Amino acid sequence: MADGLRVVVVGAGFSGLAAALALTRAGAQVRLLEARDRVGGRVLTRWLPDVTQLDLGAQWIGPTQDRMYALVAEHGLATFASAAIGAPTVLWAGERRAEPPARATRVLGLLDEYAARLDPTAPWQAPEAAHWDRTLLGGWLRATAGDDDTADYLGRLLAGGLLATGADEVSLLHLLFYLRSAGGTGPLLGMAGGAQQDRIVGGPPALAERMAAALPPGALTLAAPVRAVEQNVDGVTAWTDTGRVNGDALVVALAPALAGRIRYAPPLPPLRDGLTQRMPMGSALKIHAVYAEPFWRADGFSGVSTSSAGPLTETVDNSTPTSPLGVLTGFSYASDAAALREMSPERRRRCLLDAFATVVGPQAGDPVDLIEYDWSAEEWTRGCFSGALTPGAWGAYGPHLRTPVGRVYWAGTETATRWTGYLEGAVRAGERAAAEVLARP
Amino acid sequence: MADGLRVVVVGAGFSGLAAALALTRAGAQVRLLEARDRVGGRVLTRWLPDVTQLDLGAQWIGPTQDRMYALVAEHGLATFASAAIGAPTVLWAGERRAEPPARATRVLGLLDEYAARLDPTAPWQAPEAAHWDRTLLGGWLRATAGDDDTADYLGRLLAGGLLATGADEVSLLHLLFYLRSAGGTGPLLGMAGGAQQDRIVGGPPALAERMAAALPPGALTLAAPVRAVEQNVDGVTAWTDTGRVNGDALVVALAPALAGRIRYAPPLPPLRDGLTQRMPMGSALKIHAVYAEPFWRADGFSGVSTSSAGPLTETVDNSTPTSPLGVLTGFSYASDAAALREMSPERRRRCLLDAFATVVGPQAGDPVDLIEYDWSAEEWTRGCFSGALTPGAWGAYGPHLRTPVGRVYWAGTETATRWTGYLEGAVRAGERAAAEVLARP
Repeated sequence: MADGLRVVVVGAGFSGLAAALALTRAGAQVRLLEARDRVGGRVLTRWLPDVTQLDLGAQWIGPTQDRMYALVAEHGLATFASAAIGAPTVLWAGERRAEPPARATRVLGLLDEYAARLDPTAPWQAPEAAHWDRTLLGGWLRATAGDDDTADYLGRLLAGGLLATGADEVSLLHLLFYLRSAGGTGPLLGMAGGAQQDRIVGGPPALAERMAAALPPGALTLAAPVRAVEQNVDGVTAWTDTGRVNGDALVVALAPALAGRIRYAPPLPPLRDGLTQRMPMGSALKIHAVYAEPFWRADGFSGVSTSSAGPLTETVDNSTPTSPLGVLTGFSYASDAAALREMSPERRRRCLLDAFATVVGPQAGDPVDLIEYDWSAEEWTRGCFSGALTPGAWGAYGPHLRTPVGRVYWAGTETATRWTGYLEGAVRAGERAAAEVLARP
Repeated sequence: MADGLRVVVVGAGFSGLAAALALTRAGAQVRLLEARDRVGGRVLTRWLPDVTQLDLGAQWIGPTQDRMYALVAEHGLATFASAAIGAPTVLWAGERRAEPPARATRVLGLLDEYAARLDPTAPWQAPEAAHWDRTLLGGWLRATAGDDDTADYLGRLLAGGLLATGADEVSLLHLLFYLRSAGGTGPLLGMAGGAQQDRIVGGPPALAERMAAALPPGALTLAAPVRAVEQNVDGVTAWTDTGRVNGDALVVALAPALAGRIRYAPPLPPLRDGLTQRMPMGSALKIHAVYAEPFWRADGFSGVSTSSAGPLTETVDNSTPTSPLGVLTGFSYASDAAALREMSPERRRRCLLDAFATVVGPQAGDPVDLIEYDWSAEEWTRGCFSGALTPGAWGAYGPHLRTPVGRVYWAGTETATRWTGYLEGAVRAGERAAAEVLARP
């Protein structure tokens, strides 16, 4: 038991909440400090005047994400199936296809085969790791896929759809680590049967709020960004703008790009600090187009698409089953998202609606509402879905992703070895960090 | 004239000092805020009990670095020639050579040819820029150099010696930008006639101190890290731990990796923030081995070497002409430096002395002193020599390297278009930012 152990947890996203709950249950005295005036981190749900639930951040859970389903049940919430009426569409070099060519599927199989060779707790130890770390995903795809359209399509699907980055900004090794942690491209890319299978009634924020409510009174402090972490032989102190919180140990439950912005005394070891400089957050825009009804279904379109060209890499039917409204949600990544950000609002709107129309027809051009969300503009997130180590960085810096520094432990979905980048990974990483703290000598 | 214009400058390295001086001369009222208790930034000079001058950070200036020579003269200092007695040695795949094979020189020529096609103010606009941005330097060298030893040697010489990073961590485009800004590999790599030609009597800190002394009384505040920058229609405010400083404009004279750690209100635009997440500082160890005399000269060695293998990529004779002591200085970069950092002090010492012995013989194994310096362990620098944009990042993020954000302007050697990464670049960038502020509408 950990009676009397005082632990400070920095960040009340799913990782920090899970760490705080696990520590509390083990008898530790926990203080959870959150920069925002709300819990949940990279999740946010907005309600339209009717019952339509727009999840602006992380929104899905799927098979093998066992901790998330258990938390949903434990906290008295329910899930509902993602809308998936009809077959997905592949927009392929200007053509509409039912599925990508077989050569694309073969490349995915090869990636799964490579990924299976990695130990997700130490991907840098694989015999081919050094080679994969110095291979850009984009270049590997161009060399392997056999043609440019296949390379472009797979680059968008994988670097974009999974990491919210460009295929030429990420190493093959980082992608393989990500695939390995989720069990492969099948579990990652699927709607039903995959990581996009279910949504949470009330949205992920509802679950985060219930997790927070399960903490002891006074454990959580909102609007308290931690500016500095100081440790010595006696303990560790987190400094906020209004004061300090002392503990025996501290869990930083933030993405490395954010964790590196805290001031540490003594300073972090160079390789840990170097890691925080080399794990930028992904860059995505998530756009909801709302219509009076999901008109595309009558036209035989599912609204679910993937594309070999921008500005939207993928779309889904994101309607709420209990509402008559139709919601199409599109994702734009990396240089596509950068180009959209540089446009005037009017031009961006036209560009986005044209893209939706390409998927489901011209009716898409006249939505009831168009709601964009950019996590890169959020001071306490700075990008989504997660952070990815830059090419060549796994070898020297990867071993410091989870290694504690004295009394300081690292959580956050980036440190997960199962479902990294997902809510599930956030929870597992928080619980793993809690276990490390409890096992302290 | 800028009478009455109030400008806050953040960071009193050479860039901030140059900006502050230029603004002061134009009549502006300047406040220069520095986190450390000293000026100069990435420079530090230590004196041995005799007159030996050990420059632990930036130390050299050379032809075409006109602003630096002018500043040295203006502030009553002098330069002395770097020790270069005898011919350099090339340690090539276990052999000792007088120069690298002709194929290595041909590759350097090709790089110079490519670099000349870039506009250093907008490298992302070159016709081949997108291709070069998605080409890792290491892979390009392996494909171009014809054999692995040549690729390894050139990777160390260029990615290591110039950027303090690994050839597989940096794009060809970033290297070409760096070459272009300096005028090519000739000016960059040379001792006499090149960027390592001269040293400053008293060390670069002496010049920084004189530049600071030339500021109006009260303009400089030391030990005042800026935590937040807030701007609105009326002005801009820098917040330190002890108070605030108001201005009409503000110059951030820090590397992007540090600039991103300041809190901005309103937050920086996503692409500018994204840039600060994608420009990690280089990773280098600079090691001085001090001997009773420069014994290697009598043995016919210059002490100057470059190598196709680690742990030291290059060494120089860094003795002070007025002292009898001999100083050999070695540089270790990227994964070599990471491996050294992970060793015990005893093992690291043995490893380093063995490396010096490989250059100048077994006498190197018994120094009077061995002095290491790691700028990556410095909270207010976090790496050296400078920051480099990660592969694939120039396209979307590069245009935001210098673009002002409202009342906030960007200096620092990383933003220089001439001699980026050098003291010269720092000064030019500071003066360019000052000119931008003075040209404000």
